[in-house]
Amino acid sequence: MAAWAKRLAGVRGVLLDISGVLYDSGEGGGTPIDGSVEAVARLKRSQLKVRFCTNESQKSRGELVRLLRRLGFNISEDEVTAPAPAACQILKERGLRPHLLIHDGVRPEFDQIDTSNPNCVVMADAGDDFSYRNMNQAFQLLMELERPVLISLGKGRYYKETSGLMLDVGAYMKALEYACGIEAEVVGKPSPEFFRSALQAMGLEAHQAVMIGDDIVGDVGGAQQCGMRALQVRTGKFRPSDEHHPEVQADGYVDNLAEAVDLLLQHAHE
Amino acid sequence: MAAWAKRLAGVRGVLLDISGVLYDSGEGGGTPIDGSVEAVARLKRSQLKVRFCTNESQKSRGELVRLLRRLGFNISEDEVTAPAPAACQILKERGLRPHLLIHDGVRPEFDQIDTSNPNCVVMADAGDDFSYRNMNQAFQLLMELERPVLISLGKGRYYKETSGLMLDVGAYMKALEYACGIEAEVVGKPSPEFFRSALQAMGLEAHQAVMIGDDIVGDVGGAQQCGMRALQVRTGKFRPSDEHHPEVQADGYVDNLAEAVDLLLQHAHE
Repeated sequence: MAAWAKRLAGVRGVLLDISGVLYDSGEGGGTPIDGSVEAVARLKRSQLKVRFCTNESQKSRGELVRLLRRLGFNISEDEVTAPAPAACQILKERGLRPHLLIHDGVRPEFDQIDTSNPNCVVMADAGDDFSYRNMNQAFQLLMELERPVLISLGKGRYYKETSGLMLDVGAYMKALEYACGIEAEVVGKPSPEFFRSALQAMGLEAHQAVMIGDDIVGDVGGAQQCGMRALQVRTGKFRPSDEHHPEVQADGYVDNLAEAVDLLLQHAHE
Repeated sequence: MAAWAKRLAGVRGVLLDISGVLYDSGEGGGTPIDGSVEAVARLKRSQLKVRFCTNESQKSRGELVRLLRRLGFNISEDEVTAPAPAACQILKERGLRPHLLIHDGVRPEFDQIDTSNPNCVVMADAGDDFSYRNMNQAFQLLMELERPVLISLGKGRYYKETSGLMLDVGAYMKALEYACGIEAEVVGKPSPEFFRSALQAMGLEAHQAVMIGDDIVGDVGGAQQCGMRALQVRTGKFRPSDEHHPEVQADGYVDNLAEAVDLLLQHAHE
């Protein structure tokens, strides 16, 4: 691999994944990943632009930001690109009235959305609310629609909590896709529109930004597809086999966000 | 289409799917499909061999047969080919100790199976037991195995209960396949081994048998792949679009089992 100086040349902004990079969710809210609180603070004091780009769909942005601030992070709601608000915009633009297969924590994001007489299904990481009954209700509704529309907030396979790996929304999206014989529309990483909206909020071009995430496909592969560079951290759901992924090769692998920030502050402006 | 006489020439035995052909499951056990009780009785009085070939995996064969007899059907346990006993044989042959993601109703089939220190997952139609917690437990176990083995009793998309369409095991199989990045081994229809074991039990060659089912892919397509003929009934999970399926064309479509038996008794021996 080329030296870090070359790999990070011209970077002017950083997109940070949240779960598995800043903290691991779990009992009592979760635990910050060692060094990440300070790493975010150092980034924010630097000349680099910073934005948070998450597929979190169990919590509203407000709830997520309150949790992260309690854990010590310097973060505010308007710095976060998250799938629920992006989905709401799509619903409004297309006159869609969703049946919501979501966790109660994210429900406030949909407060302004008409959910009467639904003509589509929106699914998010519902956690324990992915009961058979709730899945079947969404399935039956899709089967009754002449043109079934399924919108999924992300398509992650799993994420890491402090207690272990947890099934993510992507697994349940695949279940409904197969049962209904349809393809879901994904809002969130790795959708290019989603990355582009985060870049736009920073006022940067793709080649000026680097994504830092723990998901080799959703974070790294997705960002690279958009023309960004991307680093994978060896925290969160990272697994050693990711470094030999058959399709995606990160622009660099780092032990954690702290190491990524060390390298960025040293090399980004060279 | 050719005349029925030509399509059914040389048929000496009939394989009957159960759910959606004999009865629709649901509240209080379920409801026989009009004319099916008499149709089975007429078949059994004929010269045709009869065997039941089901992907039922929520109930043990014993429980299923008791239910069907209560609904009026002439059926005994040794006439039924079902996936749970087939899976048990595979587990024993390969020294596999399963974690069972199944409904309590089918648990007795696994009484003789060692489930200590599991080295694979066996999943069946678990119904309400497809909770997030149970799915996640199976997922975590598969992710810990060096060579993850997932055995699924069938891969149906959905089935019909008296109250409506219900998600089947195949949807949840797809969820685990995607989350773990693996491919499940399917025991049951449409697996050729499964059809062949039913043919063997009847002592017939594939070209001498016709499958009657409500599933255009699992019943009709699977049986045809094995060299059998296959009819689809317009009961159970049948949908009008099945008659224009992009990949599978049945040897005939009939309103229900009663009509299929009328045609068979008239033409099979011609």
